[in-house]
Amino acid sequence: MVYVTRKGYFCAAHRLYNPSWSDEKNNRVFGKCNNPNGHGHNYTVEVTVAGNPPAESGMVIDLKVLADIIDKELIERVDHKNFNLDVDFMKGSIPTAENIAIGFWKILSQKITEGELYSIKLYESENNVVEYRGA
Amino acid sequence: MVYVTRKGYFCAAHRLYNPSWSDEKNNRVFGKCNNPNGHGHNYTVEVTVAGNPPAESGMVIDLKVLADIIDKELIERVDHKNFNLDVDFMKGSIPTAENIAIGFWKILSQKITEGELYSIKLYESENNVVEYRGA
Amino acid sequence: MVYVTRKGYFCAAHRLYNPSWSDEKNNRVFGKCNNPNGHGHNYTVEVTVAGNPPAESGMVIDLKVLADIIDKELIERVDHKNFNLDVDFMKGSIPTAENIAIGFWKILSQKITEGELYSIKLYESENNVVEYRGA
Amino acid sequence: MVYVTRKGYFCAAHRLYNPSWSDEKNNRVFGKCNNPNGHGHNYTVEVTVAGNPPAESGMVIDLKVLADIIDKELIERVDHKNFNLDVDFMKGSIPTAENIAIGFWKILSQKITEGELYSIKLYESENNVVEYRGA
Amino acid sequence: MVYVTRKGYFCAAHRLYNPSWSDEKNNRVFGKCNNPNGHGHNYTVEVTVAGNPPAESGMVIDLKVLADIIDKELIERVDHKNFNLDVDFMKGSIPTAENIAIGFWKILSQKITEGELYSIKLYESENNVVEYRGA
Amino acid sequence: MVYVTRKGYFCAAHRLYNPSWSDEKNNRVFGKCNNPNGHGHNYTVEVTVAGNPPAESGMVIDLKVLADIIDKELIERVDHKNFNLDVDFMKGSIPTAENIAIGFWKILSQKITEGELYSIKLYESENNVVEYRGA
Repeated sequence: MVYVTRKGYFCAAHRLYNPSWSDEKNNRVFGKCNNPNGHGHNYTVEVTVAGNPPAESGMVIDLKVLADIIDKELIERVDHKNFNLDVDFMKGSIPTAENIAIGFWKILSQKITEGELYSIKLYESENNVVEYRGA
Repeated sequence: MVYVTRKGYFCAAHRLYNPSWSDEKNNRVFGKCNNPNGHGHNYTVEVTVAGNPPAESGMVIDLKVLADIIDKELIERVDHKNFNLDVDFMKGSIPTAENIAIGFWKILSQKITEGELYSIKLYESENNVVEYRGA
Repeated sequence: MVYVTRKGYFCAAHRLYNPSWSDEKNNRVFGKCNNPNGHGHNYTVEVTVAGNPPAESGMVIDLKVLADIIDKELIERVDHKNFNLDVDFMKGSIPTAENIAIGFWKILSQKITEGELYSIKLYESENNVVEYRGA
Repeated sequence: MVYVTRKGYFCAAHRLYNPSWSDEKNNRVFGKCNNPNGHGHNYTVEVTVAGNPPAESGMVIDLKVLADIIDKELIERVDHKNFNLDVDFMKGSIPTAENIAIGFWKILSQKITEGELYSIKLYESENNVVEYRGA
Repeated sequence: MVYVTRKGYFCAAHRLYNPSWSDEKNNRVFGKCNNPNGHGHNYTVEVTVAGNPPAESGMVIDLKVLADIIDKELIERVDHKNFNLDVDFMKGSIPTAENIAIGFWKILSQKITEGELYSIKLYESENNVVEYRGA
Repeated sequence: MVYVTRKGYFCAAHRLYNPSWSDEKNNRVFGKCNNPNGHGHNYTVEVTVAGNPPAESGMVIDLKVLADIIDKELIERVDHKNFNLDVDFMKGSIPTAENIAIGFWKILSQKITEGELYSIKLYESENNVVEYRGA
């Protein structure tokens, strides 16, 4: 078993906000992340695929293919977007790093056909990171 | 002459948009950065102060003092904010990295009293950087 | 299950030294790290907490809360300190990265109440890293 | 159980090419990596060893010893080399990151005598990473 | 005056070798970099353009335009190539980092039409960097 | 003119302290950096040499030669040392980053014989950096 990781980059705006809560509770739980006009991040996503590299190619998955999937299925849908207003697959879900990683997993687990999706790791900033490996 | 640099970090949303242009021209010039709902970045700012360290302290400027100035005068005014809507000193100015760096210079050049402000370097992302050293 | 990681930073001095060994043996085993007047590092600690993000907040643990715990329980006790002389919870233990990570685990496993402490990863330098996930 | 990681660095040239395939198929599968005159990378290898640190030393494995093993057994055999032409243990194997990591594992699993080899992680570039933890 | 920097990335093989020297002298001067079958690097290039951002756009040069110039004029000509055998503008010149930076300057100084080319900085590795600012 | 930079790494302990001041003044000026038992850092030093690369070698200075000078003249004298107690060329001088950089300059300006020493840049941490380019 070899674990192959490819990174992707995007930047986006978001606001942490639960519409069923009072403003006071939103402020208490989400603090500065609840700023009404939003804020944003440069995100880094690391997609890890696990598999056995066949002898004839030596590759679990062609990293160029993996890069293209990440680009088309993830980056193009979120780059230079506002997670609360522009991103269909986040509708109804608070755009925390946790929920974005789970959203990415749902999309990619359908699209990876060589090897098996093993992990989605999402850096919201240098200091804040989340990882999801499926249920 | 010794050049002392302290880094600061913040995240913010912005939209590149010139209200006196047509939507079509805004799109042509600013591309994805003109997304109406905004996008965002993790910014890094590097503030450089130049001076001669006196023998008794060996420091051009106390880095803790410099860090506090950066925090109070820059970071608190822009962190988790929207540059177009929430930041007073950017009013009337398109929030490109160039203009933010110039805005930071105007603020800090009044506040640095040990040594002399030499440079403001602003990373909008790992790949996009601007530097301003005064007029 | 989502794994949430928050980083913290501190700098400290230490000396690797076993008082029950001869100087010769200390030198042979610990080499330059046994310098009698000590040396030091910029350490990075990564604390990972595992849990299921509830729908109403979308967060395993509020990263601000986690950051505050790391600050108060770890960083304040070791930052700008000498591990051999100034840090109570390392008394009687050689301050290798391994032992510091285990010491951090013992402290934090009592303080994390949302989610579950999963891993303490400690960078002594860019090239030397240890990780502890509990017994 | 503590996991101790030491990094090593080398640069090398390689070409992805399966001699039993047509030029057309090599180009289709390996793309730019099949350039006949080769290309190259700065590689970073992370070697992780797992074990229990004995109380008398506080170290799973002396990191200086681990660094010397990595240097002598891995770096000296591949640094400033061409993987297709100069590296004996890669003979008959396509020098993908996956196969290099497996080759490194075979060598090091015989040489680590304190603790147990847990993982070989190989960065071919900032964006492309593979990890092997044994069969 | 604002200095705007955009980064680009490529990987390539090279061999340091002066054909008018004996093998012995080539080995003495270039050491491991003279390995006959070549070696390689992940290079990072930083292109800096200086200018005054006009009020209507706030940009010295559109970073997307600069990125496209770097991509088309530099990266496409050297990425996944062998500097000694595949790169026309390096013909007759030893492919040291110094000479590659000068070669890049000659190309870009003709292509930058907004602002003025100020610096080419080339990272051959994390530890080896050269910068050229014109004659 | 080409600027060539080579990096070096070391870790050391230090204490900021002026023996002619009261404890109270030392604490007020140097804060946590005045901890009596010291603290420490992983330092990175960047040495930049300027010159014209001769056509026959294409190199301002052989980076291996520069690396060896940095190793022998700087790193070996400070690595795993205590700046206040173990480093001869810092005697009588407060070991701030500024003073260490000036000390390094004095040493290296005598030892660089190909090209000319242009800059010493010293990272005390990721966030604190000083640069000295001579008087």
